Amino acid sequence: MRVLGVDPGLTRCGVGVVDGVAGRPLTMIGVGVVRTPADADLGSRLVAVEAGLERWLDEYRPERVAVERVFSQHNVSTVMGTAQASAVAILCASRRGIPVVLHTPSEVKAAVTGTGRADKAQVGAMVTRLLRLDAPPKPADAADALALAICHIWRAPAQNRLQRAVAEHAAARRSSSKGRTA
Amino acid sequence: MRVLGVDPGLTRCGVGVVDGVAGRPLTMIGVGVVRTPADADLGSRLVAVEAGLERWLDEYRPERVAVERVFSQHNVSTVMGTAQASAVAILCASRRGIPVVLHTPSEVKAAVTGTGRADKAQVGAMVTRLLRLDAPPKPADAADALALAICHIWRAPAQNRLQRAVAEHAAARRSSSKGRTA
Repeated sequence: MRVLGVDPGLTRCGVGVVDGVAGRPLTMIGVGVVRTPADADLGSRLVAVEAGLERWLDEYRPERVAVERVFSQHNVSTVMGTAQASAVAILCASRRGIPVVLHTPSEVKAAVTGTGRADKAQVGAMVTRLLRLDAPPKPADAADALALAICHIWRAPAQNRLQRAVAEHAAARRSSSKGRTA
Repeated sequence: MRVLGVDPGLTRCGVGVVDGVAGRPLTMIGVGVVRTPADADLGSRLVAVEAGLERWLDEYRPERVAVERVFSQHNVSTVMGTAQASAVAILCASRRGIPVVLHTPSEVKAAVTGTGRADKAQVGAMVTRLLRLDAPPKPADAADALALAICHIWRAPAQNRLQRAVAEHAAARRSSSKGRTA
């Protein structure tokens, strides 16, 4: 499975592509940052984020896009820009029919470090180790994007099992309620 | 000047097109709502908002797009969806090179009713009067979109004067500082 992780932001939008399946060594395919100038108007910045992400989707053709889930409670001053950049990422992927999954920062930290309260340095160190890199990817937004992709690859089997169980439960309920009404 | 007002939202995104200039009677050209199903996934909803707004831009060719400015302080439960829908609106307009202006809800209410604390009914009543309609546009999101367009048409002359003054001031400072360094 090839996953593009996106750590959304207007000033720096982290992007990282990882290939692999749960339980096997993972491979980093690409990593980088889409930047937009802080003094540009919001519309130009969103257009630039869209163009940047389209290039990554064109070049790497991911099967899934994992985007950090934005909460309105945190970082009130920057949350609007983050929410708007995430909307562009979700839109670009969905327009191509690529499934989008949102992961919270705690889920990502827990997946790669074992604790949801890990700091940036711990996440960077684990991403470096898991992808067998020579040094932590810089800036932190790029490392976070790779961590999102890793988190998604590792959680996907559990999510699939959960979805299958929910679907089977719903099907069983439908057939049992049909039995009652027949 | 033709302005498309957008009251952003995922469930109901209000859209309204108004023609006119400040100080003259205004004309409503179109009004409506772009809806997306609440049970669809976020990606599909953003794609549907984009497709809906593209149709409005194609059909009405506005010279300006006025979008409600979203604040993270208010309505925490829905603010993320609103911010994401507004990002799509700003992106669609900016991609076409149409200038986008953001107005706060208070600015819009003050422009059409004289007070920033007006309620939905007051805004609807004034939109009906100003555009000489038979009845207030329904739902309220559609009326709000028209109010945004009206607000922009009326504020545009003042904004242009302000921008001109700022530009002249900056030019004067540049030439006076050149004078000093020469």
